[in-house]
Amino acid sequence: MWLRTRCDMTFELEVPTPFIFMMRPRSGAQQWIGREEYRLDPVVLVNEFTDGYGNLCQRLVAPPGPFSVHTEADVRTADRIDRAAGGPFVEIQNLPDAVLGYLLPSRFCESDRFGQMATEITAGYSPGYDQVAAIEAWLRNSIRYTPGFSDVHVSAIEVNGRQTGVCRDLSHLGIALCRSLSIPARLVVGYLHGLQPMDLHAWFEAYVAGRWYLFDSTQSRASGGYVAVGYGCDAADVAIYNQFGPSVFPVAQQVQVELLEREDPGPWP
Amino acid sequence: MWLRTRCDMTFELEVPTPFIFMMRPRSGAQQWIGREEYRLDPVVLVNEFTDGYGNLCQRLVAPPGPFSVHTEADVRTADRIDRAAGGPFVEIQNLPDAVLGYLLPSRFCESDRFGQMATEITAGYSPGYDQVAAIEAWLRNSIRYTPGFSDVHVSAIEVNGRQTGVCRDLSHLGIALCRSLSIPARLVVGYLHGLQPMDLHAWFEAYVAGRWYLFDSTQSRASGGYVAVGYGCDAADVAIYNQFGPSVFPVAQQVQVELLEREDPGPWP
Amino acid sequence: MWLRTRCDMTFELEVPTPFIFMMRPRSGAQQWIGREEYRLDPVVLVNEFTDGYGNLCQRLVAPPGPFSVHTEADVRTADRIDRAAGGPFVEIQNLPDAVLGYLLPSRFCESDRFGQMATEITAGYSPGYDQVAAIEAWLRNSIRYTPGFSDVHVSAIEVNGRQTGVCRDLSHLGIALCRSLSIPARLVVGYLHGLQPMDLHAWFEAYVAGRWYLFDSTQSRASGGYVAVGYGCDAADVAIYNQFGPSVFPVAQQVQVELLEREDPGPWP
Amino acid sequence: MWLRTRCDMTFELEVPTPFIFMMRPRSGAQQWIGREEYRLDPVVLVNEFTDGYGNLCQRLVAPPGPFSVHTEADVRTADRIDRAAGGPFVEIQNLPDAVLGYLLPSRFCESDRFGQMATEITAGYSPGYDQVAAIEAWLRNSIRYTPGFSDVHVSAIEVNGRQTGVCRDLSHLGIALCRSLSIPARLVVGYLHGLQPMDLHAWFEAYVAGRWYLFDSTQSRASGGYVAVGYGCDAADVAIYNQFGPSVFPVAQQVQVELLEREDPGPWP
Repeated sequence: MWLRTRCDMTFELEVPTPFIFMMRPRSGAQQWIGREEYRLDPVVLVNEFTDGYGNLCQRLVAPPGPFSVHTEADVRTADRIDRAAGGPFVEIQNLPDAVLGYLLPSRFCESDRFGQMATEITAGYSPGYDQVAAIEAWLRNSIRYTPGFSDVHVSAIEVNGRQTGVCRDLSHLGIALCRSLSIPARLVVGYLHGLQPMDLHAWFEAYVAGRWYLFDSTQSRASGGYVAVGYGCDAADVAIYNQFGPSVFPVAQQVQVELLEREDPGPWP
Repeated sequence: MWLRTRCDMTFELEVPTPFIFMMRPRSGAQQWIGREEYRLDPVVLVNEFTDGYGNLCQRLVAPPGPFSVHTEADVRTADRIDRAAGGPFVEIQNLPDAVLGYLLPSRFCESDRFGQMATEITAGYSPGYDQVAAIEAWLRNSIRYTPGFSDVHVSAIEVNGRQTGVCRDLSHLGIALCRSLSIPARLVVGYLHGLQPMDLHAWFEAYVAGRWYLFDSTQSRASGGYVAVGYGCDAADVAIYNQFGPSVFPVAQQVQVELLEREDPGPWP
Repeated sequence: MWLRTRCDMTFELEVPTPFIFMMRPRSGAQQWIGREEYRLDPVVLVNEFTDGYGNLCQRLVAPPGPFSVHTEADVRTADRIDRAAGGPFVEIQNLPDAVLGYLLPSRFCESDRFGQMATEITAGYSPGYDQVAAIEAWLRNSIRYTPGFSDVHVSAIEVNGRQTGVCRDLSHLGIALCRSLSIPARLVVGYLHGLQPMDLHAWFEAYVAGRWYLFDSTQSRASGGYVAVGYGCDAADVAIYNQFGPSVFPVAQQVQVELLEREDPGPWP
Repeated sequence: MWLRTRCDMTFELEVPTPFIFMMRPRSGAQQWIGREEYRLDPVVLVNEFTDGYGNLCQRLVAPPGPFSVHTEADVRTADRIDRAAGGPFVEIQNLPDAVLGYLLPSRFCESDRFGQMATEITAGYSPGYDQVAAIEAWLRNSIRYTPGFSDVHVSAIEVNGRQTGVCRDLSHLGIALCRSLSIPARLVVGYLHGLQPMDLHAWFEAYVAGRWYLFDSTQSRASGGYVAVGYGCDAADVAIYNQFGPSVFPVAQQVQVELLEREDPGPWP
């Protein structure tokens, strides 16, 4: 399927403010960017770089006054989520080097504290894909998904205590549980077609059966329509924007995901 | 200045043909991609990756029949070429690690064979920027620039023998001469506003005085308006497309570079 | 100065146990490895790879029974710590790309929570090196250094609460404070000549005045003699070993650092 | 098997001379460095970095006078060469990204000129491993291996004309032939146990059947005992040393490879 994603953010700045944005989706394993636009108002100099996870980041200093960022992309993405029931756990010694970093605890995913809990949740499930599916189902049933409310300092331990959270919170807990079972897991931030209410979204991926698989505990009828913008260990790595100096927040933000009528060459290999 | 670049290529294929295209400009040190489009007809699956030089490459298998690629980008780029008369040679031990590979001979730039010639051309010039400027001027005066005609097997040694060549040929010879003086040099492929006749273009960069500087022996009144699409040691690394199996060539190719009326935040730092 | 470092660890394993060791120092900016030895008993197959921080990591599966690792290196390192009183803060927009990841909060350094505290500690100090020096001094005076005792789950917030900790704890708190001021900071694990009691050690580095500077709050008379083995955001990234499956700990561990009488070409540039 | 490799080189320098050495073998897919020594006399400051191919390189400025480099390593390596008769050609679209650069023509391997010749040599052989084996056999029968004599400017085209060459020449021609068939191929420089006469050695690897396989046209009874020191597209990338300024050559060079009696955990997986 082809989707048109749009994100508009406006800030009101009092002083020159350095930003690092991560708002440019890349073509990759499961998506192709056919058209893309990135507009700043006012126009400023931008330095774009690729971070350690492969994300495109835009560094700039926004001037005082109103500052807005408009991004838009036409993206071909899968119209279903790949699943692999029974897919095996990959032994540590057989994981690709590039995946090993996703086994470690991180700011919002204290996987060193979830060993026993993960073992209980996945008791009776076959090591690998089925364990992650059990974690995803447990999250869906146990942690109330409350879109909108967000405390950016909240980590997996606190999510588990509160029993409620936004998409990134559920994902953080899912990631922490996976890693505590020696399953590499990472956070993905981006867009989801049909999300209610529409907003930027977050989900997680786990590495089992030889590749990354997508999991989203916030959706009961998970289908396709995902557009990834950034990958990382957790939300510390994949902020849509990092801003330095006195905190500022968007005075306006709008996200849209629209289905395009366009030819699609069919399922990804 | 803001430029809109367009490149359309059409192939007529008899068998499924694997391609690697390098047609997606990246935001970088001296350019910002504000809008970009990449259209394939028919639509096929594409795997995009970053090569060892940081170029975005698109790998695909084109089906038999007509196959066309349309790319388009709105790019902010400098409206003048930075110069650094008297800028010093950087001693080998002080070069950044990432630049060292550009000192080595490569397929089309046999720098191991040009030591004496480079010494003669640059006699009396101060080591560094002025040597490269002397090489650029020598090329302009000594090698006839003949746009259009191109033999893709021709290397710097042969260009020097023929005393004529296309943009990539002059650049290859310039690169070989620079490297033989221990000055890192690389090929850049992309667009140039106002190029006559309009086509894809190639120029070279040399690392002196602590950064890369642009040189173009094909233009007597060098100003700005350059849009880089790919970087590499020479044309072997930065082909707009590599194609595997029986050779095919575009049955049609059109390149356009248009000046846009758009706000520009001024000179790059 | 030339140092000979040695680390011996022995495990008693009940089942085949996957390990990732990080025990091979690399030549780098401030140290040169002149001789190095890495011995496993029993001998097993090892897969060595470089992680995202540039550390050499050794992945292996140790068989049941006693398993020992012996590493030894002759290292030339600086005999003093570089200082840069008054060295300036580097604005975000001027930091090298590779350093930006060290601004983010991480598992054991919740820098998103230390903004106010860091501002208080560094009040009156000039932005940059002097701020970090003030943090280092504050740590030395405020957090009791208690070598030996270590709880590997403890993060900067908890260290700050306990007011005591091992070398990695003090470093984590220092890192969190630096990052909250937008100063990149990272953990280093390795050896220190003359450490009392001798053990593996941890310190931190902050990026100010255009390069990384070393800080060690555990030593009141900081001089040289540091040998770095691993770098990372915090101890989650730079464990001397990560082990998967049921926890095991060394039944014996011995660390030695010996001064060698050997010619030294003098200060690093 | 365990081998002890040694290489000693001595230069007599008239002026301070910048060098980049590539003499430090790394642990990797098929070898493990158990002990390693790198001694310079006189001792100078060294900056070690990893090049674009993953090789460890040592950059230094040697002072006037005698300058010697002594390297030594104990390496576990395979005692047989893996073979894969009938192993399939990997379609371009299925090659790993990291391997694609080894399809391109390079300084000493003008693969763009060998298409017809490669097709003739491999006529009747199944695409993939068997083609490379046919090329290796053809080289052995058609190009006279003449150890000792070496012209460092000679490329595959010239080797083919001369019908004779040193190890790197035969390898360059083999690489050019492979690449012209769209088989990725690379040069390896290092040591070979039992080589007659003993010297540094070069061979090539081709990517077929999902991994790199070793080929050595200089040896009729190829067995194991190879120790890789550097990898690259061709000898331009993997010089044991690159030296800048007026040419200097070792006044003495000695290479030794000794078999060690030491426990070996058996075949690599």
